[in-house]
Amino acid sequence: MNEVLKNILTRRSIRSFTEERIPDEAVEQIVQAAIYAPSGRNLQSWHFTVIHDRDKIARLAAVMQELLGNPNYNLYKPDMLILVAADRENSLGQLDTGCAMENIFLAAHSLGIGSVWVNQLYAFCDKEPLRALLTEYGLPETHVVWGTAALGYAAGPAAERPRAEGTVNYA
Amino acid sequence: MNEVLKNILTRRSIRSFTEERIPDEAVEQIVQAAIYAPSGRNLQSWHFTVIHDRDKIARLAAVMQELLGNPNYNLYKPDMLILVAADRENSLGQLDTGCAMENIFLAAHSLGIGSVWVNQLYAFCDKEPLRALLTEYGLPETHVVWGTAALGYAAGPAAERPRAEGTVNYA
Repeated sequence: MNEVLKNILTRRSIRSFTEERIPDEAVEQIVQAAIYAPSGRNLQSWHFTVIHDRDKIARLAAVMQELLGNPNYNLYKPDMLILVAADRENSLGQLDTGCAMENIFLAAHSLGIGSVWVNQLYAFCDKEPLRALLTEYGLPETHVVWGTAALGYAAGPAAERPRAEGTVNYA
Repeated sequence: MNEVLKNILTRRSIRSFTEERIPDEAVEQIVQAAIYAPSGRNLQSWHFTVIHDRDKIARLAAVMQELLGNPNYNLYKPDMLILVAADRENSLGQLDTGCAMENIFLAAHSLGIGSVWVNQLYAFCDKEPLRALLTEYGLPETHVVWGTAALGYAAGPAAERPRAEGTVNYA
């Protein structure tokens, strides 16, 4: 089995991270992987907001705690977040986001970096005070966040995730 | 740069295929890559319909020609199609589909097989006579097709796809 297939099969969501910082070169490679995803009609109408600052991530978590009414919400305390957003007028934005997110996860895993999809921003990204903070962090007003990738070095093993049966048929 | 990153950066959509048949082992590896994608809340509520039969693909193309009013529609005459569907009640189905589609594209590319996302089924998958044919091909009534991957050996070089500028910012 080639390295690409091995990397796909061994990726698992990681929900606990060490304090170690992801090197700049790896950040650049992960972001480059994201922008090389395919997009519907090649529109590339997406926007990636890279938050590689634990204080800024903590501010975002605090805003989400308020919106969710959950004081324990912490985005898994990652070293880095990448928000994947699409133009709100693009009906293919969620499909594009899925492709870009998977590139982020696979690129990270190939570099020994763990990741997980955090989904709660998606429901709140036009609500205040979240939108104001996202604007401060560089998200265009035209864009909605469909995916949030939390990244860092794994603090422990990933859970096993058995595959569901019966999801494939051959016509 | 590692093999995983190279594979991500060199994948391009292929829209013209030779008559060569994809070997069964490669089909199995591509399908396995698909089902190892992450899914929201790990629901794995997706369904993959593998159509590795040129006559069946031609029948599907004929139905689409009728629905689209376009006699030239041919799904790019691939060797194989994989329809990626999600339970219609799953609000994260499009995001899951994007991840699984990208795994299909990347696994195929790592095996020297070209691919492209064909998007038109998405709008018509509950219309007749398409739904009846999809049922015949094994798609559950509960599921809607969000993504269609056309696969085969490339008949020519892929078009270059320059990346859009200004899609990334560092908060």
